[in-house]
Amino acid sequence: MQRYFASCKNDNIFILDDKDKHHILNVMRMKSNDHIEVVYDGVLYDCCLYLDNNFIVKCVSEIDSFSSNMMSIILIVPVLKEQKMDIVLQKATELGVDRIIPIITERCVVKVDGKEKNKVDRWSRIVKEASEQSKRINVPVIDNICKIDDLKFDDGVKLVCSTVEKQKKFKNIMQMHKNCDKMYIVVGPEGGLSSAEECKLNDLGFVSVSLGDRILRVETVPLFILSCINYEFLE
Amino acid sequence: MQRYFASCKNDNIFILDDKDKHHILNVMRMKSNDHIEVVYDGVLYDCCLYLDNNFIVKCVSEIDSFSSNMMSIILIVPVLKEQKMDIVLQKATELGVDRIIPIITERCVVKVDGKEKNKVDRWSRIVKEASEQSKRINVPVIDNICKIDDLKFDDGVKLVCSTVEKQKKFKNIMQMHKNCDKMYIVVGPEGGLSSAEECKLNDLGFVSVSLGDRILRVETVPLFILSCINYEFLE
Repeated sequence: MQRYFASCKNDNIFILDDKDKHHILNVMRMKSNDHIEVVYDGVLYDCCLYLDNNFIVKCVSEIDSFSSNMMSIILIVPVLKEQKMDIVLQKATELGVDRIIPIITERCVVKVDGKEKNKVDRWSRIVKEASEQSKRINVPVIDNICKIDDLKFDDGVKLVCSTVEKQKKFKNIMQMHKNCDKMYIVVGPEGGLSSAEECKLNDLGFVSVSLGDRILRVETVPLFILSCINYEFLE
Repeated sequence: MQRYFASCKNDNIFILDDKDKHHILNVMRMKSNDHIEVVYDGVLYDCCLYLDNNFIVKCVSEIDSFSSNMMSIILIVPVLKEQKMDIVLQKATELGVDRIIPIITERCVVKVDGKEKNKVDRWSRIVKEASEQSKRINVPVIDNICKIDDLKFDDGVKLVCSTVEKQKKFKNIMQMHKNCDKMYIVVGPEGGLSSAEECKLNDLGFVSVSLGDRILRVETVPLFILSCINYEFLE
């Protein structure tokens, strides 16, 4: 059954946004009495559509409520060119990222001046669609674009993917912290973080880790990391 | 230093293909006496360019020769739509795949009739470029497109990614066979393999494995698997 995230709930009626309505009417070509899955506030519902004179999504029953026991993953990624950023957002959502903090670093090639809000809105739409497609029960949060100096964190394990560090392997660090609640992971841009940036992150408590000897494109790194985290929990 | 794969070697002169020559002259804008890395037959060479009246790539010294001790990974993937296939080929190359066998399955949506050779040629170019970019020392082999019935294999561990199997986890099977020389992995198309196809593969010795509960797009699955294999060997 097709899954959508509701933006609002009034009694047993859910409100979907216009893009989802368009998808239901014009892409899926659904009719009155067809059913959809709706997620609202971490709960999954079976809903029935009434489309004759209006657009009503009515709750039929609660299917499931969720509590995740996997660690929360916060990915801190440089702003990449559009196509690469889209791949990262879509695949990271499929692979279970919880929050993405886009940052501007020294070697970022993308200019964002004046386009910050448009970009964040666009990225938020991409992760919402990817969440629906991969049947997640929540949508990753996309933070506003910021700089390393502006980063704020709670407790949690903090890692930065390094091209310099050779000793501390991501796998070993992951296995040491397998039971942590929250992990922050910084990925560098093409050309890597500058050594000043990596030092600054180290001062903020980020441990530099090696992902091994392969040379990965910048957009591959988040997918690699999230795949490994899923694998570590695959038992 | 930029890396290229030579198609041929005569004494200490390497022959590059036309696309690489174009890349050196018009993209990298290299000049005579500039150096490049050339891989030929599993050996990496430092080479000097002589471009004044001709295009000569002359060996200066051998840098390294390689022997891989990681298992050989053969990915068997359905023919996907162009953009998805390109992502799989490029990322699988970055992540160390050794051979890709494109197959036609019941639920493949792409028609290949009469275009087989063009497609395989195009895919071979993509993996060659990705190998150069990720500084591999070999280029993955792309087989001709075939059907499940036509698959031929040597010894090795054989896995098929299943949406039905829930007990046998990919991680457990991977760890059981960590020291094997060769692993064949079949990925299904959108909509999955048919149960007849999965049974046929099981009869051929392929073990159905679960990748966990996440719903991954078809092009994400090979990247997930190869990331996990790299992670397993990251010590």
